Amino acid sequence: MTPLYIGYAAAMLGTICWIPQALQVWRTRDTRSLSLSAQVLFLATVTLWLAYGVMIMDWPLILANIVSVSAMIAIVTAKLKFK
Amino acid sequence: MTPLYIGYAAAMLGTICWIPQALQVWRTRDTRSLSLSAQVLFLATVTLWLAYGVMIMDWPLILANIVSVSAMIAIVTAKLKFK
Repeated sequence: MTPLYIGYAAAMLGTICWIPQALQVWRTRDTRSLSLSAQVLFLATVTLWLAYGVMIMDWPLILANIVSVSAMIAIVTAKLKFK
Repeated sequence: MTPLYIGYAAAMLGTICWIPQALQVWRTRDTRSLSLSAQVLFLATVTLWLAYGVMIMDWPLILANIVSVSAMIAIVTAKLKFK
């Protein structure tokens, strides 16, 4: 197995993995055990990756981080809305 | 501001951001609103990034993902232990 496939698998999993969390918090409206600082820091992280992707015009980075930023905005919004 | 600084900032934030979540779940023993599938998928993601880093011998990738894997193991363990 080449390292490149491992890298692609990591990138793909990292892109989709926050979708179930976003769905769960909006379905249950329960966000108590989510750390607000962790969620906000991770939203900042994926926003910076998206900005970096746009700056170097790297489409895989841009597309992956559009998905992550959307999921994280949904999670942080739920955290702020449902105390 | 060069893109490289944005990339470094994203990498650094992404490394530390799950530490407050790990601390919170172990302090409160409350993990109900964490999605198990999201946490397991993200643990798989950072483990793959670590494997990729080792394969291409990229030290920033290795060090950052050792921190992330540790935080995610702590979170997933808490999720399985404290229902």
